[in-house]
Amino acid sequence: MTEFIPPATRWFPLPSPFPMKRGGALHGARLAYETWGTLDAGATNVVLVLTGMSPDAHAASSAADPSPGWWEWMIGPGKPIDTDRWFVVCMNALGSCKGSTGPASPDPATGEPYRLGFPELSIEDGADAAAALVRGLGIRQLACVVGNSMGGMTALALLARHPGIARGHVNICGAARALPFSIAIRSLQREAIRLDPQWNGGDYEINGCYPENGMRMARKLGVITYRSALEWDGRFGRVRLDPERREDDDPFGLEFEVESYLEAHARRFVHRFDPNSYLYLSRSMDWFDLGEAHGGDTRRGLASLQDVTHALVIGVKTDILFPIQQQEEIAAGLRDAGADVRFLPMPSPQGHDAFLVDEARFGPAVAGFLRTLPTARLDANRVA
Amino acid sequence: MTEFIPPATRWFPLPSPFPMKRGGALHGARLAYETWGTLDAGATNVVLVLTGMSPDAHAASSAADPSPGWWEWMIGPGKPIDTDRWFVVCMNALGSCKGSTGPASPDPATGEPYRLGFPELSIEDGADAAAALVRGLGIRQLACVVGNSMGGMTALALLARHPGIARGHVNICGAARALPFSIAIRSLQREAIRLDPQWNGGDYEINGCYPENGMRMARKLGVITYRSALEWDGRFGRVRLDPERREDDDPFGLEFEVESYLEAHARRFVHRFDPNSYLYLSRSMDWFDLGEAHGGDTRRGLASLQDVTHALVIGVKTDILFPIQQQEEIAAGLRDAGADVRFLPMPSPQGHDAFLVDEARFGPAVAGFLRTLPTARLDANRVA
Repeated sequence: MTEFIPPATRWFPLPSPFPMKRGGALHGARLAYETWGTLDAGATNVVLVLTGMSPDAHAASSAADPSPGWWEWMIGPGKPIDTDRWFVVCMNALGSCKGSTGPASPDPATGEPYRLGFPELSIEDGADAAAALVRGLGIRQLACVVGNSMGGMTALALLARHPGIARGHVNICGAARALPFSIAIRSLQREAIRLDPQWNGGDYEINGCYPENGMRMARKLGVITYRSALEWDGRFGRVRLDPERREDDDPFGLEFEVESYLEAHARRFVHRFDPNSYLYLSRSMDWFDLGEAHGGDTRRGLASLQDVTHALVIGVKTDILFPIQQQEEIAAGLRDAGADVRFLPMPSPQGHDAFLVDEARFGPAVAGFLRTLPTARLDANRVA
Repeated sequence: MTEFIPPATRWFPLPSPFPMKRGGALHGARLAYETWGTLDAGATNVVLVLTGMSPDAHAASSAADPSPGWWEWMIGPGKPIDTDRWFVVCMNALGSCKGSTGPASPDPATGEPYRLGFPELSIEDGADAAAALVRGLGIRQLACVVGNSMGGMTALALLARHPGIARGHVNICGAARALPFSIAIRSLQREAIRLDPQWNGGDYEINGCYPENGMRMARKLGVITYRSALEWDGRFGRVRLDPERREDDDPFGLEFEVESYLEAHARRFVHRFDPNSYLYLSRSMDWFDLGEAHGGDTRRGLASLQDVTHALVIGVKTDILFPIQQQEEIAAGLRDAGADVRFLPMPSPQGHDAFLVDEARFGPAVAGFLRTLPTARLDANRVA
C-alpha cells in the first residue's frame, strides 16, 4: 500500500511498546499525519481531525502536497476550519494502511506483515494513539477534536480516556456505540472479504493473489449505506447504461447507471485499501460502546465527558448507517455533561457521506461553531 | 427443489407456447397454486394472492396441508381474508422453484433444467401467467387481487395488461417501478451469487457443487433490507452470543446476536431456493416500470388502471426496500384512475417484512377493506 501514502505525510512514532486495549502490544508502531497552519506559541490553537474508516491523512492540499484532500473545501485559509487561525492535524487511523501501522505493516518480530497476527484493534486503541500524537506534538489541550463517522467514535473514546485533552468537540455522523443494523452491514462486508478464496486467511499479496471480488462486494455495500435512496432517485432514477457500455455476453451484467456507479466506486477502492486492515477497522466499530465502562449505559458514558465545554454535533436525516438518533444521543449526553451543545440535524439528501459533499450545509455549520470557539489557552490552567 | 413443494399444491398448465414479454416462449409450463374456501356459483368471490419473491403457494393451512402457511394469520375462516366468504387462490410466481416453471425446471426441448437457457423473465410474464390461471379457473373477474412486495408489482402489471380482471386491489409494500436503491441492493445480491465459484455459470447441482456462500450472502443482505434498524435496536441491541455458541478459532466469526440471526436465516434459505431462479426473479423486479408504456410516467401508468373500483394500499414507514413513497405513488395513481382508495401508512417497526409479522396492524386493515368490498358479480356485466 506504500504507493498510496500521500507525499505530505509525517510520521509520529508511538511509544513502544504501545499496549492494546484487548491485549498485546505494538512495537515500533507509528502514526501518519499531516498538518496545516501554524502552531501558536502556547500550542493552544490545535484542531485534530479524526477520519472515517478509509481516508488517509491528506484531508486538504498544502504546499507540500497541492493535490486536493478528501475534505478540501473544509480545511484551509479562510475555509470553515480556517488554517489562518487554527493549526490543523489530521491523522491516519491506527490499523489503517495509509501510513499508520496496521495489519499490512511489517511485524518487527518477524519482518513480515502482521496480517492476522496484528493484535485485536479497538476504537480505544485509535484514541490512545491520537492522545500520544497530541502529547508528542507538545500540545497540552486541543482547542477542538473533530471526528467524522468512525472518527466520531474515536473522538468520544479520546475524550473519555484522556480527560481534558480537548475543550471543543465537533462530532459529525458519529456514534457512541454500534447498533445492530450497522453491525449487520459491517459483518456482511467482512464476510464478503473472508469468503473470497483469494483472501486466503489473510495471507494474500497486494499485487498477486488478492481478494478483489470480496473487496468489491464490501465496498459496494459500503457505498449503498453511505448514500441514500432519496439522493439516488434524483441522481440515477431508472437510467440505463448506453448499450456500448454493457457486456452483451453477460445476461446479469451491469444494466443501470446505479450499478455502473457502484462498480466504478468499487474498482477505485479495491487495490487502494488493505483487506485485513478493512476487517480490523470494521470490527473495531462493532465493538465500540462508550457505555461499556458504565454498565452499557451510553448516556452515562457521554455524561462523563465533563471537560468538553463546547460541542457541535451534526447528523444527517437520510443517514442509515449512523442514524440521526445516534447524534441526538451524543448531543443529549454532552449536554448532561455540562457542555454548551449545538445539535444540527441536516436535511442533506446524501446520507452518511453528506459531510464529504454537502459543503453548503456543513461548511457554514463548522465555520460558525469554530468562529466562536476560544483557543485552548484561556483556561488551560484548569486542566490537569 | 421438488422436496420443498407443499403437499396441497395444484398445478395449472399454462397455454403452450406461453410467449414471454422480452422474447422466447415457454412450452409445457405450469403454475403451482393452492386454494382455500369455496368458489361460488358465478365465480364472483375470488381473491387472488400474489406473493413476494421467495414464498411458495402455501399461504395458509388447509385440510390437504395442515402445516402453517406463510400468511397463516391472514387467510382462513373468520380471518382477515375470510375463507368463509372468499375463494382464495395463491400462486407460486412464474420463474420460481416452488412448483411453478422456472430455471430449475426441465426444458422440454432437452429434458435438462433450463438454467440460464430460461427465457428472460419479467414481472409482466408473471402477470400474464396469473391471468391465464384466473381464466383457466373459469373466473371472469376477481373480486380482489392482493399483491405483496414483488407480488404488488405483479398485481399492477396484471391490472394494466388485463383490463377488467379485478375490481378490488390490495397492494402491500409494493411498487410501480424499481428505484435505484433497491436495484443496487438486488444487483449486489445477484453479484454475490454469480461470484461464488460454485455458481459455475448457472451449472450447479442442488445437492452437489452449489453456490451456498453466494446464496447465504444474498439472503443476509435480503434480510437486512427486509427488516429495520428500529426493530433490531430493540430486538438485538448489542447483545452478544453466549461464548459456547462462538467459534474460538475464527477471529472474525459471529459475535453479536444480530449476526447469528442473519446466519440462521441464511442457512434456512440456502438450499430451499434455486439460485438461478433467484437471479431471474430478482432481475425481473429491477426491470419493472409500470410507466414503461407511458413514456416512463409511472403516474400515468397507474392512472390507466381504470377498472379498479376499490383499492387498499399499505406501506410501512420503516421499509427501506420498497419505501413508503412508492405506495403513496400507487395510491395517488389509483385515485387518478378513479378508484376509491384507502392508503394506510403503517408505523410498524419491522420494515418491509411487516406484512408477514405485524398481524395487529395488517389484519384489521385488510379485514376492514374486504368486509366492504362487493363480490365481483354486481357489475361483472360491465366487464368486457
